[in-house]
Amino acid sequence: MTLRLFDLAGAEPDRRFSPYCWRIRLALAHKELPVETIPWRFTEKAEIAASGQGLVPVLVDGNKWIADSWTIANHLEDTFPEAPSLFGGSVGRSLTRHYSGLADALVGAIFPFIALDIFDRIADKDRHYFRTTREKRVGKTLEAFVAGRDERIAAFRASLAPLRNTLKAQPFFAGPEPLYADYALFSPFQWARCISPFALLEEGDPVKLWRDRLLDRFGGLGREAVAYHV
Amino acid sequence: MTLRLFDLAGAEPDRRFSPYCWRIRLALAHKELPVETIPWRFTEKAEIAASGQGLVPVLVDGNKWIADSWTIANHLEDTFPEAPSLFGGSVGRSLTRHYSGLADALVGAIFPFIALDIFDRIADKDRHYFRTTREKRVGKTLEAFVAGRDERIAAFRASLAPLRNTLKAQPFFAGPEPLYADYALFSPFQWARCISPFALLEEGDPVKLWRDRLLDRFGGLGREAVAYHV
Repeated sequence: MTLRLFDLAGAEPDRRFSPYCWRIRLALAHKELPVETIPWRFTEKAEIAASGQGLVPVLVDGNKWIADSWTIANHLEDTFPEAPSLFGGSVGRSLTRHYSGLADALVGAIFPFIALDIFDRIADKDRHYFRTTREKRVGKTLEAFVAGRDERIAAFRASLAPLRNTLKAQPFFAGPEPLYADYALFSPFQWARCISPFALLEEGDPVKLWRDRLLDRFGGLGREAVAYHV
Repeated sequence: MTLRLFDLAGAEPDRRFSPYCWRIRLALAHKELPVETIPWRFTEKAEIAASGQGLVPVLVDGNKWIADSWTIANHLEDTFPEAPSLFGGSVGRSLTRHYSGLADALVGAIFPFIALDIFDRIADKDRHYFRTTREKRVGKTLEAFVAGRDERIAAFRASLAPLRNTLKAQPFFAGPEPLYADYALFSPFQWARCISPFALLEEGDPVKLWRDRLLDRFGGLGREAVAYHV
């Protein structure tokens, strides 16, 4: 039975941009599992109610509805053990959990640059929900939140020094070839690229070169997505 | 032949505090390798000149002089493959390198809290060297650098959220038992504890509970060190 994935979409159904969904898209490709992705909007909570919560990604595997990207990745690893491993064994799985958390922290660090771009590109019916929930979370208007991003970008790029140092020493976080740790950390950059024309990364930055290597994986799955050329 | 480790010491020869040395102390214990540690001061560059550079840790293994904690950890793993693994395999080794870098970043984040405490506790002959090199690096006096630490500590603790989140989900970064990834991240906290009475971590913080579990490992190697009870 084909797996189905509820995948966050913007105004256009093929603008898929969730950082949590992107890491699962790459995990599915890594495990060579076909998937039917279903465009989903923030306010379509009823569509995924069977998962017991209201956020994507939600994977539907037969009669199982599974939420949360880390839970889904583990489900894929355990359910399809013969497919290429996402973690490289039990130690690798444990070590990878923190990468998932680092990726989530990166989502938080990138949001002050792209929050208004997200608002501008989501479906009309999602706008009120997005603005009110995010403005409550950050304690200011989206406009005020992203103000001064040109002045803030240098500090953000500097904050990537640990990622950059590792990527100067090896092609991927998992070594010569990428695993889920890479897909998790890639996903916030792909999120930004799919929804915002703002250039987060400089040309020649080892972080950007690594991101670009991941864009090319799986037949260009990431590169061919509806996105900006940044 | 017994391994020897040049290990940074304060005014008292048994106050060992380098974060880069501490991760190797734990790595040696993990691999069940006896070691003779040699107290070393910042200005004793001649003592370790055979390593081709002037920083510790330096491991002397027969006629090999090896510098840099990550290089030493890899040397131990490759030279003693039958001893308990530090990485849990090749994927684990690749995934662990970034933890080493995260630990180095943590050294940088903790330094503004303890820089003056280090100065106060190092050997007299090291003080001019330490003050001048560090003040040049940070662009201000040590006194000005640590000023306001009571006001800054809440933001530092908040910045540990990714570590904390992982440690709420599993006992160690490497899983049920610690590996080098844990020793690397532990080492900046042990550095601070050995040289400064300033409380970096709050009681009950999962990060502190994890640190305390590591203090107890290897017969209390970390806990029995000359240190402050913070």
